Amino acid sequence: MEYPSKLIERAVEEISKLPGIGKKTALRLALHLLKQPDSQVKGLAESLVELREQIKYCSTCHIIADKEECTCKVPYRDTSVICVVEDTPDVLAIRNTGQYTGLFHVLGGRISPMDGIGPDNIHIDTLVERVKQDQEEIREVVLALSSTMEGDTTAFYIAKMLKETGVKVSTIARGVPIGGELEYTDEITLGRSISGRTLFSTD
Amino acid sequence: MEYPSKLIERAVEEISKLPGIGKKTALRLALHLLKQPDSQVKGLAESLVELREQIKYCSTCHIIADKEECTCKVPYRDTSVICVVEDTPDVLAIRNTGQYTGLFHVLGGRISPMDGIGPDNIHIDTLVERVKQDQEEIREVVLALSSTMEGDTTAFYIAKMLKETGVKVSTIARGVPIGGELEYTDEITLGRSISGRTLFSTD
Repeated sequence: MEYPSKLIERAVEEISKLPGIGKKTALRLALHLLKQPDSQVKGLAESLVELREQIKYCSTCHIIADKEECTCKVPYRDTSVICVVEDTPDVLAIRNTGQYTGLFHVLGGRISPMDGIGPDNIHIDTLVERVKQDQEEIREVVLALSSTMEGDTTAFYIAKMLKETGVKVSTIARGVPIGGELEYTDEITLGRSISGRTLFSTD
Repeated sequence: MEYPSKLIERAVEEISKLPGIGKKTALRLALHLLKQPDSQVKGLAESLVELREQIKYCSTCHIIADKEECTCKVPYRDTSVICVVEDTPDVLAIRNTGQYTGLFHVLGGRISPMDGIGPDNIHIDTLVERVKQDQEEIREVVLALSSTMEGDTTAFYIAKMLKETGVKVSTIARGVPIGGELEYTDEITLGRSISGRTLFSTD
């Protein structure tokens, strides 16, 4: 496409580097920004640069935070359970369910030899360290990883590493999603939901 | 949603002001940017601020440009036709068809009393001026406006204003889109396509 201005062309180029945004959407966004007050555009630009420059990761749970000490140790959290997730959005998703009040541990990825990511490239060592240090307090480690080959490999590796600590290691349930019809559920999920069946309670 | 960091929260707030981007997408984009090199984030931020601060509008055709004199008068353009459009994306869309080599005139909106936009708020006066000044050269003004109440009102107003100049005023064809089936075309479009039928040429 031929752009009417080099400034537009550069902005489109930069915006379309974002995931899920093509050249057409980028152009639409750029032209939208042109019509907005100066302060809004500056606010957006500043917030992005500040985010990138000032963000910290909690030294304990590796979650994104403003300071190196995040709120992972506030008193109302159940400090006897650690939920292990791949990335920060997973933490938000699990928090939003309201079903979990324990601690978190962000791996920052998953073991994926295809992408050159081994166990040493993600925060497994600090997890083991953390469990060892608080061995009296921590009762359980919940693995909340993707249900993919890489996620399963990562879960298996972590479970093996934690074996010597004697802590209980569990994994989130796999099965038919709530609202899902059996007819449309894929065979593997259905198979897992049968092999992982739980007692039906009438209480 | 509870964000793990004030910086993330602010970035999400700013990004989600963009059209078509909700809080969830904004969070995804913010977390994506965190993983990108510093230079990319700075490049994006800079390009947006520069776009907003340095952009100019051509003083003749009001198209977005780097300088106040745009390329609207390059020799390979047909300077006897002016195509009137509402906004810059329309110019790009029409240029991309390859069916038009003439000049453009960007109104910067359309007459819409509901939104408080009258004929004086868009660049109709400069269009009339332009036609009057180049009366010998300009043969035709093509109105390429939206097929809406506001677009039609604007077209009607412009045609009336140009009447005294004696220049030919045409409007782009309305009808069944290429590839469109009659069965699924709405009644108004079909009606217009019948009343505006053209001679079928077998040459």
